[in-house]
Amino acid sequence: MQINRIGKQTFVFHNEPNIIGAAAVVGKKEGQGPMKKWFDVILKDDSYGEKTWEKSESKILKKAILLALENAGKTKEQIDAILSGDLINQLMSSSFMARDLQIPFLGLYGACSTMTESLILGAVLIDGGYAQNIIAAASSHYCTAERQFRMPLEHGNQRPPSAQWTVTGAGSMILSNQIRSQQMIAGEPAKNLVVTHATVGKIVDAGIKDVNQMGAAMAPATVDTIMQHLKDTGREPSYYDVILSGDLGMVGKKIVKDLLLKENIDVSTVYDDCGAMMYEKEQDAHSGGSGCGCSASIFSGHIFKEMRQGKIRKALLISTGALLSTISSQQGESIPGIAHAVAVEGK
Amino acid sequence: MQINRIGKQTFVFHNEPNIIGAAAVVGKKEGQGPMKKWFDVILKDDSYGEKTWEKSESKILKKAILLALENAGKTKEQIDAILSGDLINQLMSSSFMARDLQIPFLGLYGACSTMTESLILGAVLIDGGYAQNIIAAASSHYCTAERQFRMPLEHGNQRPPSAQWTVTGAGSMILSNQIRSQQMIAGEPAKNLVVTHATVGKIVDAGIKDVNQMGAAMAPATVDTIMQHLKDTGREPSYYDVILSGDLGMVGKKIVKDLLLKENIDVSTVYDDCGAMMYEKEQDAHSGGSGCGCSASIFSGHIFKEMRQGKIRKALLISTGALLSTISSQQGESIPGIAHAVAVEGK
Repeated sequence: MQINRIGKQTFVFHNEPNIIGAAAVVGKKEGQGPMKKWFDVILKDDSYGEKTWEKSESKILKKAILLALENAGKTKEQIDAILSGDLINQLMSSSFMARDLQIPFLGLYGACSTMTESLILGAVLIDGGYAQNIIAAASSHYCTAERQFRMPLEHGNQRPPSAQWTVTGAGSMILSNQIRSQQMIAGEPAKNLVVTHATVGKIVDAGIKDVNQMGAAMAPATVDTIMQHLKDTGREPSYYDVILSGDLGMVGKKIVKDLLLKENIDVSTVYDDCGAMMYEKEQDAHSGGSGCGCSASIFSGHIFKEMRQGKIRKALLISTGALLSTISSQQGESIPGIAHAVAVEGK
Repeated sequence: MQINRIGKQTFVFHNEPNIIGAAAVVGKKEGQGPMKKWFDVILKDDSYGEKTWEKSESKILKKAILLALENAGKTKEQIDAILSGDLINQLMSSSFMARDLQIPFLGLYGACSTMTESLILGAVLIDGGYAQNIIAAASSHYCTAERQFRMPLEHGNQRPPSAQWTVTGAGSMILSNQIRSQQMIAGEPAKNLVVTHATVGKIVDAGIKDVNQMGAAMAPATVDTIMQHLKDTGREPSYYDVILSGDLGMVGKKIVKDLLLKENIDVSTVYDDCGAMMYEKEQDAHSGGSGCGCSASIFSGHIFKEMRQGKIRKALLISTGALLSTISSQQGESIPGIAHAVAVEGK
């Protein structure tokens, strides 16, 4: 039996599952930020024509999936399973999306780490020969998250500078055991994207109880997973063109750099954070973006397209999650952080 | 590359991942029901010494995992990942359990289908060579579920006869790529349990909106998965000694039998339901048990032990989930049902 594992926490995909299609659908505010040119759809109205924010989010997720299928040249009948999750209690967005699409469904919850959780398990199902085509997806919505985790929108409460802004958006990728038929992008043959490794994170709790300090709460878990990944694979940070954490925002991004430097790991030339990348400073999003949809839409938009064009060759994506609940904070608990890493290469 | 898949929705595990240990921890009421002799721990007090019900549930889950490890002869350092979920918003029980155990963690949400979701993905990780030892687990607690999904406990509301009682309990199984060292049970060599197949379900929504009719809401999804499993594997129901659905209760169990009979599939001699098995009629649990902990504790208690002794040889376990959310019902949505099946054989 082949061992598809190296080191303590890292899977190796010898059959190189391909990411053959992707799409990102985002809200109006996200479509005004620096990432706007990479998104497939930018909504004019975040309600997306639905009567409740939860139904809007579910529709955004479904749209991202249908566009990714189109991008991959697949029909939903060719898909073996959807792996998806979101922040809404009981995964309402994902469950109702999966009800509509009628594809076998595995619901995942990793808070904002969900995009890499779904990519990891999707890659395992393809690489291991259990599936031929898988949808991996995740979503979030400012209006569903804000009222569930924080305050009613109508309350108009003040946010501290360390707070992050939940991204309205969804990302979806199609994983397949077959490579994508050759396509040309700007006169050059497009690269084929393959998932090569994945590192499953363990929970690190820094003892932070302030729900406006999510970046700080998740940074130590991010550092733990990056270091474990480098150790397991024997790689230096410079192996990657890009090391991208999920959504730590400005505050958390700085902490990650500092903590890694203390361990003599310098990521300064390759590291960035999806939360820090999502908005312009003038957009009043304070420390940056957050939510499952943040790393999901940036991977499925910016990173996927840059890799297809060969402008990024090797990327390490680390979505990060804060595993607090709506009541754990009220019960005096600190915020458990988690981060999962996925290595993707364009070949 | 080996294809580990048959039919439309079924994985085949050629390397036969072993279930080398299991444990079930339940509350006082569950410990007074017909399954009592199979549980490893029956609590005297469902608070389990904790100040909040959520922390009680997390502690019950952790206890079931630690006992399963002991039963399997493994230490937590030998475990590659925990796959677990529960009903509490943001998987509070599982997240805080995983924080304490410091093992790589993948959170799953399939409502009451979570036990088979974790078994399926755990079996995939072992069978595919991505892990050597995995913990698959799930939990629920009457007091956390009741106040989250229904009414404050102090309200003492009336429950209709079709309502089910959320099980206070957790079940955990240890999956391994190595067989368990030979043990004797009652003078006979114990059987080795292997996971042979898994069928991932798709969502079936029967249009039911009454949250006191969960069994009826989940029954069509259960029938869909049973029929798909039989079709994919080419088996008759009689192949199995036991076909056990998750927690449809008395009402849902009858519907499953009726719907299958309409399709000329007679399961009457082998079929039962964990929800229907959990309580005595006099225990006032109305239609029976529900919650992730229901099928989790019955598989990890009764079924695991009977299979180890060779009294059950072939079992098909189908945990069933109602993927409604705390707000989807308020928004007029019907209840999406899902069911995943896992085939286990004692060899």
